[in-house]
This record gives sequence, structure tokens and C-alpha cells, in this order.
Amino acid sequence: MSNQSPIPVVVIGAGGKMGREVVKAVAQASDMNLVGAIDTSVELQGKDAGELAGLTEPLEIPITNQLEPMLAFAAQEKQPGVMVDFTHPKSVYDNIRSAIAYGVRPVVGTTGLTQEQISELAEFADKASTGCLIIPNFSIGMVLLQQAAVTASHYFDHVEIIELHHNQKADAPSGTAIQTAQLLAEMGKEFNTPLVEETEKLPGARGSQGGEGIRIHSVRLPGLIAHQEVIFGAAGQIYTLRHDTSDRACYMPGVLLAIRKVLQLKSLVYGLEKIL
Amino acid sequence: MSNQSPIPVVVIGAGGKMGREVVKAVAQASDMNLVGAIDTSVELQGKDAGELAGLTEPLEIPITNQLEPMLAFAAQEKQPGVMVDFTHPKSVYDNIRSAIAYGVRPVVGTTGLTQEQISELAEFADKASTGCLIIPNFSIGMVLLQQAAVTASHYFDHVEIIELHHNQKADAPSGTAIQTAQLLAEMGKEFNTPLVEETEKLPGARGSQGGEGIRIHSVRLPGLIAHQEVIFGAAGQIYTLRHDTSDRACYMPGVLLAIRKVLQLKSLVYGLEKIL
Amino acid sequence: MSNQSPIPVVVIGAGGKMGREVVKAVAQASDMNLVGAIDTSVELQGKDAGELAGLTEPLEIPITNQLEPMLAFAAQEKQPGVMVDFTHPKSVYDNIRSAIAYGVRPVVGTTGLTQEQISELAEFADKASTGCLIIPNFSIGMVLLQQAAVTASHYFDHVEIIELHHNQKADAPSGTAIQTAQLLAEMGKEFNTPLVEETEKLPGARGSQGGEGIRIHSVRLPGLIAHQEVIFGAAGQIYTLRHDTSDRACYMPGVLLAIRKVLQLKSLVYGLEKIL
Amino acid sequence: MSNQSPIPVVVIGAGGKMGREVVKAVAQASDMNLVGAIDTSVELQGKDAGELAGLTEPLEIPITNQLEPMLAFAAQEKQPGVMVDFTHPKSVYDNIRSAIAYGVRPVVGTTGLTQEQISELAEFADKASTGCLIIPNFSIGMVLLQQAAVTASHYFDHVEIIELHHNQKADAPSGTAIQTAQLLAEMGKEFNTPLVEETEKLPGARGSQGGEGIRIHSVRLPGLIAHQEVIFGAAGQIYTLRHDTSDRACYMPGVLLAIRKVLQLKSLVYGLEKIL
Repeated sequence: MSNQSPIPVVVIGAGGKMGREVVKAVAQASDMNLVGAIDTSVELQGKDAGELAGLTEPLEIPITNQLEPMLAFAAQEKQPGVMVDFTHPKSVYDNIRSAIAYGVRPVVGTTGLTQEQISELAEFADKASTGCLIIPNFSIGMVLLQQAAVTASHYFDHVEIIELHHNQKADAPSGTAIQTAQLLAEMGKEFNTPLVEETEKLPGARGSQGGEGIRIHSVRLPGLIAHQEVIFGAAGQIYTLRHDTSDRACYMPGVLLAIRKVLQLKSLVYGLEKIL
Repeated sequence: MSNQSPIPVVVIGAGGKMGREVVKAVAQASDMNLVGAIDTSVELQGKDAGELAGLTEPLEIPITNQLEPMLAFAAQEKQPGVMVDFTHPKSVYDNIRSAIAYGVRPVVGTTGLTQEQISELAEFADKASTGCLIIPNFSIGMVLLQQAAVTASHYFDHVEIIELHHNQKADAPSGTAIQTAQLLAEMGKEFNTPLVEETEKLPGARGSQGGEGIRIHSVRLPGLIAHQEVIFGAAGQIYTLRHDTSDRACYMPGVLLAIRKVLQLKSLVYGLEKIL
Repeated sequence: MSNQSPIPVVVIGAGGKMGREVVKAVAQASDMNLVGAIDTSVELQGKDAGELAGLTEPLEIPITNQLEPMLAFAAQEKQPGVMVDFTHPKSVYDNIRSAIAYGVRPVVGTTGLTQEQISELAEFADKASTGCLIIPNFSIGMVLLQQAAVTASHYFDHVEIIELHHNQKADAPSGTAIQTAQLLAEMGKEFNTPLVEETEKLPGARGSQGGEGIRIHSVRLPGLIAHQEVIFGAAGQIYTLRHDTSDRACYMPGVLLAIRKVLQLKSLVYGLEKIL
Repeated sequence: MSNQSPIPVVVIGAGGKMGREVVKAVAQASDMNLVGAIDTSVELQGKDAGELAGLTEPLEIPITNQLEPMLAFAAQEKQPGVMVDFTHPKSVYDNIRSAIAYGVRPVVGTTGLTQEQISELAEFADKASTGCLIIPNFSIGMVLLQQAAVTASHYFDHVEIIELHHNQKADAPSGTAIQTAQLLAEMGKEFNTPLVEETEKLPGARGSQGGEGIRIHSVRLPGLIAHQEVIFGAAGQIYTLRHDTSDRACYMPGVLLAIRKVLQLKSLVYGLEKIL
């Protein structure tokens, strides 16, 4: 990458928690160049994106709410530009269309797009021969865990999942734990065929059913952050995969990887696992 | 103990899984002397208790189904005798009464005595000024865990329990996990007051209720043996106590301790925690 | 505490990382009243201590570098005052003497006092019949772990310690892990008597010697925060105590407890374990 | 497999600890047929291989020390035969040559063959177009862990290994942990580049060097069995792979898989990972 021009990057949602992390990560990547920082919050207009992200020196990139001029600007650079979107379900669809229209590649962490919207965007990206990445979970560690779990499930017939989160999380199980269970369940075999007739002396003891016999247990305590454990068992052995998240910084290697990979794509791709 | 006579010990249920371990442990304790090995199984009569227990040399103690002669024999030794009982709920009550009648101190691991039976036995032991130990769980490590958990529960308001066992265990949660929850619940405070309104997207995800808000989660997998984890949480910290059992040998330090302690008692005492 | 006057609290080092946490915790405690916030940093003078601590509303307590007037002010309240000190080894000795002179009770988290200084301060507090708490580690969870480990070491003869920290920590093992090993080693028994002649195929594999045979292993990785695990082993069982720290907030219950307890003391007390 | 003839299997070393497990596993596999059980121990000659293996009913296969007749017998079956070898470094080479000479496929768990011997055997198998599997570790779970670790090491630059074993194990680190470190080190990148200058206050604290900066820590305690943990760290996240072995039964799925796979091979293959 050394003798190439840096990749011009526009961050939209640059004032949000994830957006600030992205600004910081892009600013520190030697092969990228932050060219625009968009946020619609009135009170952030004109503030320096770098200072907002906690960098010690300003980036001289003021926050603006004008996406299209920024896309136009990014499109003029030597390298094709990339737009990283951590905004809202309401705005993300239009943002992606605008970016593709300008030849800027979207890398999208915003969730909430419907299946129909994703199909439309895929068609749109296809026609424009423009790469677009929609990635619900940028955690490389979690994707590695899920891939290793799928591999292990060919050889183990028994598995349970424990996910542990802080007690401000209202729903249980976590979306990611449900997703892990589904990935295993899709293999089309039944897990955890019981040896004995199980009885719950206290209802709920054996956890929830995540599909094809896979149990999911959810622990909620202050002091926890975000943790997932997949435990495979067979006669005489246990194989455990565990992922612990302690900071949003953990998503940045995935974001930077996506920025580099989207330039090589000609169509819409969904999920970090596709580019690992 | 060096210049004292060894403690004469009769093991009843000597052919069972726990009984064999006790025979082995007593035979290897320098301050004890196995004087009798009782078992009612027809096919074990006359077999050497030591060989049955897997010792390399015979103990010259044949298995017999005659309890009373053995108690009479143990009662003649210089030191008062001790009877270790790992039998059946049906026979244990009579065994204990017989032992006390002969002045032999019972150490009882058999479960299933009713509260009423225990009260009667306590009265009987009291009148005879004879020590008697009834101990549902001989695992010193588990008792230490429970005591440490009770201490921690004065300072932590949030706690959940995960117990993990092999998938041949039919009931959930385990009796020991329920007991741990009860010990904490007896403190009279409500744990795990929710910060948010919790919703279970899959029923059972949040586990069972062990009392006063304490959740118990039960994992069942081949390859697991017997494990319990008590997880305390507070802002910025997690404190975890975990006990793993891999072999019945883990109960023997508790059995030997009970044999030594029962000689100093004049009445019935319930629970290993009372003699630690 | 409901119908009592709140405890007046002066925080010194109020602009530091721990000081800000203390300001926030005291402001949120219903039985305490922040009356002064001291810091010597020039750029913080006059700033609101609450805003600095990240509270949404100002506390109307400006940061000042004038300790003595604040102590005089605290001394006039109905309840005796408390000074919480998270400053520097250089200033802490004088701060404590000043506080005691004004009848204000010191709660000290600053480390670096020499044994001689502590002796002098103890004498000074004694003469004044004034409570003073010097507490190198305010983490209640860690103190509970250490106490539970000391209890367990009466029954287990084998133990190893693993401590895990982020890779910005330069020294190994951590001070707290060394302290845990010392607490166990003080029992005066040798741990981990080897069964076999151990050989290290790679030097260092078996970790460091923390005293009396206790091994300490230090793991350093980005993504870790601060974790300690004490693992006891005996035939057939493992008993593990683990403490995970994820945020300075974990020290605040210990600080608040110390503020309440120091009022009942008449002399200098060292260590959180003495007031649990 | 249902309408195929069962695979005829000869077990050599059938009286050893692993051999007995293999006899049991083969006897219980519906697509296999135990046809011979070889062991050179004088006292085992003529004993029933099934009873020796702890099966409730005899297999009517007496232990014999005559390998060649058994190989000749296995070679006459409809399906090609398989010889499973858990014997000694001294005899394994000759056993393998004999088996191949009779057209019986060797599945070898015996360790200690030299690199030169393996090359000779590979040539011999090649000429005979006969499959032969040499597998130092039959644990599918451990091989899955190692493969998942190799995959993760493409994305993580920091990793440490902790292996935990009972205190009867004399050497540290374990051979399997060293092997895991080597697999990662072979990638040709340096791990764990330090951020700060590390200092060991107690020598050995930071563990041993397993190559390319990878640390290995060895814990030895009674109550442990055989455990390995590979911990990857990056900013804000930890990804942990752990394997726990509690019983030799854990190797049997790997042995059965090898018996089935060796029939499809025409040459010598080394390592379970090659047939997963």
C-alpha cells in the first residue's frame, strides 16, 4: 500500500459513539485519509471531527450535515472513495443510494434495513458495478468464534451457549447468541439428544431453545460487558469458544478491513464472514 | 495423633461406589484402622474389602452383612469407634440408632432422612451423649465456596449461579446449586433488582428462580462432570467462585475430617460447614 | 442514617481519575455531602467539581488548591468531616497531618507512604483519638477473594495464581497477585510439594515463585483489563476464585464504606479487610 | 454403511489402557467387527478382550500374542482389514510393516517413530498402494482448537497459551501446548510485540517462550486432568479457545474416524487434521 494514494473516507454519523471510533481509527490508518465527517446533530455542526473523537490534535475536518458535497468531493480523489455509515435505520437506505450514485463505496454498520431494502440495494450496486458491504457485526473475534463453532458442530453432537451481558441489556438472549445458535441449527442435525428424561425442578433452569435442541442461557449482571461462550461436549472432553468484548475499539479492525475490501468488490456483500 | 491408638472404623455400604472410596481412604489414613466392612449385596459376601476397593494388597477384612457384631467389636477397642454410612434412605435410620446404642459414632453420608427422623436421632444422640454427624455433602471445596458466597453476598447485590453437569443427570438445577441459592436467599435481601424491564425473546433464557431474585442456569453436556459457578457482579467488577469435581476422591478429606471430629462431639451435628 | 446529618466530605486530588470517581460517588450518596474539592492543577482552578466528574448538573463546588480553609469548613459541620485523599506520595503525609489537626478523618488511597511515615501518622492519630484509614486497595471484591483464599488454604495444600492484565502494564507479577501469594505464604506451610521431579523443557513455563511454593503466572494481552485467578487443587477437585475489574467504579463501594467506618474509629487502621 | 460388510479390525496392544478403550469402541460401532485382539503380556493370554475392556458380556475374542495369523485372518474378510496399534516405540515399526504386507491398513497411535522410520514406512505404503494413518493425537477437540487458533492468528497479533495438568505430569510445557505454539509460530509473524519495556519482579512470571513471542504458562495441580487454553487479545476484545480432557474416551471418535478413513487412502498420512 506504501506507494498508493490513500483511500478517501467519508464517515457519516461521525458524532455518534461508533462514528467517533471510526474517525479515530481512519485517522490513524496510514493507507486512509478522512475527507469528510457528516452528522445531522445541530450542536455538532462545525466542530472538529478529530477533537470530537478524542484525538489530541484537530483533524481540520469540521462536522457538517451536507452529505452530497462530501460524496462529490470523495469521488474526485485518485482512489475511489468509501463511505462508512453508522447512522439510523431511517436514513441509511438513502445514504447508501446516494453514495453508490457518486461511485463511493458504502461500508454500513447501521442495522435495521429490511430484507426488501437490501435486495433493492443489491440490485442497485450490481447495476453500478460498485462494491457495498453491509455488516451487522464488525467484531472479527465474534465471527471467528461463529466460524469455529460451525466447524466444531460437524464433530460434536452436544452444544450449549451461555451469553453474559451487563444488566442494562433488556432483552435475552442476545441477538448474537441467537445468531450463533441459528448458524449451528442450519446444519440440519438435531443437537443434544437427551440420554435421560430431563425434569426441571425450577422452571427455566435448562435455559431457552435456540433451535435444533441448542440451549441458550443468558446472564445479566452489573460489571459484565458483553461475553459469549459456546460449549461443545462429547464423552471425555469439552471444547469451549469464548469471546469477551470490553470496548468499541474491538470493532475497528473489522471496519478498516471492510474499507480495504469494499474497493475490490463489484456488488453488495452481507456479513463480515464473507470477507475474512 | 502419633502416640494414640488408631480410630476403629466400620464402613457400612462398603461395596458401593462411595463405600469403596471410604474403605481405601481409611485404610491409607495412619490414625485410623478399618475394623469392619458391611454390605448387604449377596454376591459381595466374604470378598476382601480392600481388593474390592482397588487396593493392591488385601486388607483381610471380608465383607459381611452382619452390622451388630461389627459394632460390638468396634466398641471394644481402646478408642471409641466410628461407623461411616453410605447406604440407603431405608436403612440409614436404623443403622444410626444401632451404632449409637453400641457407643459407636455415626458419620452419615446417606441422604433421604426426613426432618422428623433427624429430630428423633438428635434426641437419641443427646441422651446418649454420643457424637453423630449427618453430612449431605462431604466436599470441603463446595462448602468453602458456599461460605465464601455467603460472605460476598453481604457486599454484592447481584449474583447468578451456573451449574454444569454431565447429561446423564436428569434433574435441574442440581441440589447443591439450589442449596447455594437458598443460603444466599436466607440473608433476607432481594438480589438482582432489575435496572430495565427484562424481556425473554426465547422463554427460559434468563434461567430459573432460586429465591430472592437469584437465577440458576443448568448446563448438561457429555464430557462435563460436576461444576458450580457463583458469579457476583457490581459496577466495574465481577467476583466468581467456581468448584469443579472430577472424582469421588474429592469427598475423602471431608470424610476423614468428620471421622476425627465426631469423636469430640456429644450430640448430633448436621452439615460439614459446622466442623470446618 | 435517614434522620442524621450527612457526612461532610472533602476530596483532595479531585481532578484526578480516581478523584473524579470519588466526587461522583459522594455526590450520589444520600448520607454524604461534598463540601470541598481540592486539586493543585492550575488549569482546573475554579472549575465545577461535578461537571469535571461527568455529572449532568454542576455541584456548585469549585475546584480549589486551598486545603486548610476546606478542612476548617468541614470541621464546623454537625457531623465530623472526612477527607478522601487520592494525590501523590509527596503530599499525602502532610495532607493527613493537616486533616487530623483539624479533626477531619482521612481516608487515604494514595500509595507510597513509607513504613516509618505510617508509624508516625498512627501515633499522631492515636494522640488525637481520630480515626484514619489508609487503604492500598479499595476493591471489596479483591479483598473478599483474598480472604476466601486464606480460608481455603487451611484445607488445600496446592494452589497457583494466574493474573491477567492489559499489555500496557510493564511489571509482572502484579502487586496484588504478589500480595495474595504473601497472605497465603504467611500461614507458614509449604504449598505444592511436588509428586514428581519437575523439568522445564522451556524455561519459565512453571511461572514465578510467590513464596512457600506458590506459583504466579502473568498474562499480558491487549483486550484484558485486570483479572486475578487463584486456583486450589486437591484429589478430584478444583476450587477457583476469580476477580475481574473493568472500571474504576469498582472501587467506589469500598471508598463509601471507608468514609462511613472512619467516623467510628479512634486510631489509624491499614487495609480494607480490617473494616469488612 | 448399512448394507456394507462391517470393517474387520485387529487391535494390537489390546490389554493396555488405550487398547481396552479401542476394543470397547470398536465393539460398539455398528459398522465394525473386532476380529483379533493382540497383546504380548503373559498374564493376559487367553482372556476375553471384551471382559478385559469392561464390557458386560464377553466378545469371545481371546487375547493372543500372535499378530501374523490375525492379520492373515483379517485379510480374508470381504472388506479390507484395519489394524489399530497402541503398543511400544520398539514394536510399532515392525507391526506396521507386517500389516501392510498382509494388506491390512494400520491406524497408529503409538508415538516414538523416528522421522526416518516414518519416511521408510511412507515409501512402503506407497508401493503397496495401502493406506496408513499415523496419528500422534486422536483428540478431535484438540485438533479443532489448533485449527481455529491458526485461523485466528491471521487476525490477532497477540496470543498466550495456558496449559493445566495434574501434578503427576513431570514435564512443562505439555507437548500439545508446544505443538500449538509451533503451529502459530510457523505463520512467520512475530506475536506480542511489547508496548512497554517489561520487567519481571519475580523470574518466570511471564512464562516460557514457545516461539515468535508466544508465551506458554504451565499450571500443575492435583484435581486437574488435561486442559489447554489459547487466549488471543486485541484492543477491546479477547477470544479464547479451551479444550478440557477428562477421560480417554475422548480419543475414540478420532480412532473410529481414522478406521473409516484409512480404507479410502492409498498412502501414509500423518496427523488427524489431515482427515477432518
